[in-house]
Amino acid sequence: MKRIIECVPNFSEGRDTDKIEKIVTSFREKEGVRLLDYQRDHDHNRLVVTIVGEPGALKPALLEAIGTAIELIDMRKHQGQHPRMGAIDVVPFIPIRKITMEEAVDISKQVAREASEKYELPVFLYEESATQPNRKNLASIRKGQFEGMAEKIRAPEWAPDFGPSKIHPTAGATAVGARMPLVAFNVNLDSDNLEIADQIAKRVRHTNGGLPYCKALGIALKERGIVQVSMNMTDYTKTALYRSFELIKTEAGRHGVNVVGSEIVGLVPMGALIDTAVYYLGIEDFSIEQVLEYRIME
Amino acid sequence: MKRIIECVPNFSEGRDTDKIEKIVTSFREKEGVRLLDYQRDHDHNRLVVTIVGEPGALKPALLEAIGTAIELIDMRKHQGQHPRMGAIDVVPFIPIRKITMEEAVDISKQVAREASEKYELPVFLYEESATQPNRKNLASIRKGQFEGMAEKIRAPEWAPDFGPSKIHPTAGATAVGARMPLVAFNVNLDSDNLEIADQIAKRVRHTNGGLPYCKALGIALKERGIVQVSMNMTDYTKTALYRSFELIKTEAGRHGVNVVGSEIVGLVPMGALIDTAVYYLGIEDFSIEQVLEYRIME
Repeated sequence: MKRIIECVPNFSEGRDTDKIEKIVTSFREKEGVRLLDYQRDHDHNRLVVTIVGEPGALKPALLEAIGTAIELIDMRKHQGQHPRMGAIDVVPFIPIRKITMEEAVDISKQVAREASEKYELPVFLYEESATQPNRKNLASIRKGQFEGMAEKIRAPEWAPDFGPSKIHPTAGATAVGARMPLVAFNVNLDSDNLEIADQIAKRVRHTNGGLPYCKALGIALKERGIVQVSMNMTDYTKTALYRSFELIKTEAGRHGVNVVGSEIVGLVPMGALIDTAVYYLGIEDFSIEQVLEYRIME
Repeated sequence: MKRIIECVPNFSEGRDTDKIEKIVTSFREKEGVRLLDYQRDHDHNRLVVTIVGEPGALKPALLEAIGTAIELIDMRKHQGQHPRMGAIDVVPFIPIRKITMEEAVDISKQVAREASEKYELPVFLYEESATQPNRKNLASIRKGQFEGMAEKIRAPEWAPDFGPSKIHPTAGATAVGARMPLVAFNVNLDSDNLEIADQIAKRVRHTNGGLPYCKALGIALKERGIVQVSMNMTDYTKTALYRSFELIKTEAGRHGVNVVGSEIVGLVPMGALIDTAVYYLGIEDFSIEQVLEYRIME
């Protein structure tokens, strides 16, 4: 695989194993598509699938899975803790290798258009693919959820980007878009004071004047008796992991608190860690082409 | 490709483009084999090829290239600055992915045996594949070079591991073995005093009581007016890059000198940089399985 895009479709079915397997099967044994992971959650009643592949191979597999989900999931009967507006709730595309964000946006629009035409599904474009500023954020699109969408979508300002201006009777509506990979990066402090983690989180995160592409919250790790600055790094190419790490160290100093470790939850692109190594070792003129595994993938 | 081994055969032909292309062609367009790089050097009169692949696919391609080199290279006419004892001077195998060192040793022995039988070529096993302690080091095997080998190989203590106890008349002898990947890692100092770089190199390298798996020399970067501790890290899984970097920083402090950067020359395994990032960020319980590109290669 030379050009690789990742896709993390979220389906509104986290309980029925038979239905889950039928949806996921579209991503199995397809040339140029790799199923990396799928996680079902009973309480959320949601299925999160992670696939990677060449854009040309990923598209038909996705359209097939979307068709299966429309057939099997009836949102009128769906209950779960996670906010959702459709059977295929959201389909993010993430450029991984030799694909620009512009190309990822293009691919997301192609899938959005084809899915809307094939299944009479209303589709909203979000994140980098958004056509209006108030559609960048998935939460604003999804506000009101499946139950409120029947009404919301009839308002001219909420006309979908593709498909009919009415929800699909059983599958609701879908959001499709392109975004950078998320890195879930948490930094641990040698304190049990949640207030301190919260204050540091505020200084680090973008919404309070901190680092761009950094969302942060203070949380308590009760079992360990420590607190943590829990972050979502939304574009590691613009705000590197080491920058948030070093800033947290500095801010922790104000409170007489030390950083005692960190964790990365789930998958992380190689580049996020390589950038970090290059920074700390001060490696001059380093190119990703020097990484053996990067070359092997060519 | 799931299981990947690297091989860096060195051939004694760095001048004749036609012959070089004929040797290299064995590694082109072979299923399961990827030609990453080949570098010819006129003064050394030597060709260094870097290939990766699945062991089963790499072996026949290598045997084919060895056959071509035996056909095309006549060591009786070979001149060059680099020490050499054969047309196929040395064939190191390096485990990269889902291959243990023991398996790499096995593969090296299979290739050594098959090449010796097919081409009546004497082959010495070296590094991890060595059968005697004094054959671990390639330099001891190669001492005397092609010209001295006709005599040397008749001594019982220098009987080859495979093949006849006499050199191949035109192709000499070959060393085959398995080793860990080398990382060429150089650390720059803000000083023009070569003596300081030399002293630091001595304290860092293994032969003078420093870090295992670290070879180091002081060198002057005349154009930049600075000196450098130039290292070969021979097993980054045992002596990580950050350890030599931090030790050089500490030792530089004795001389009132600062580390001002570093460089990695050529290819580096992803793991060497990821270990470094994990160290500096203090990431707990990190697994290589969390690296997206690692998973994609499955």
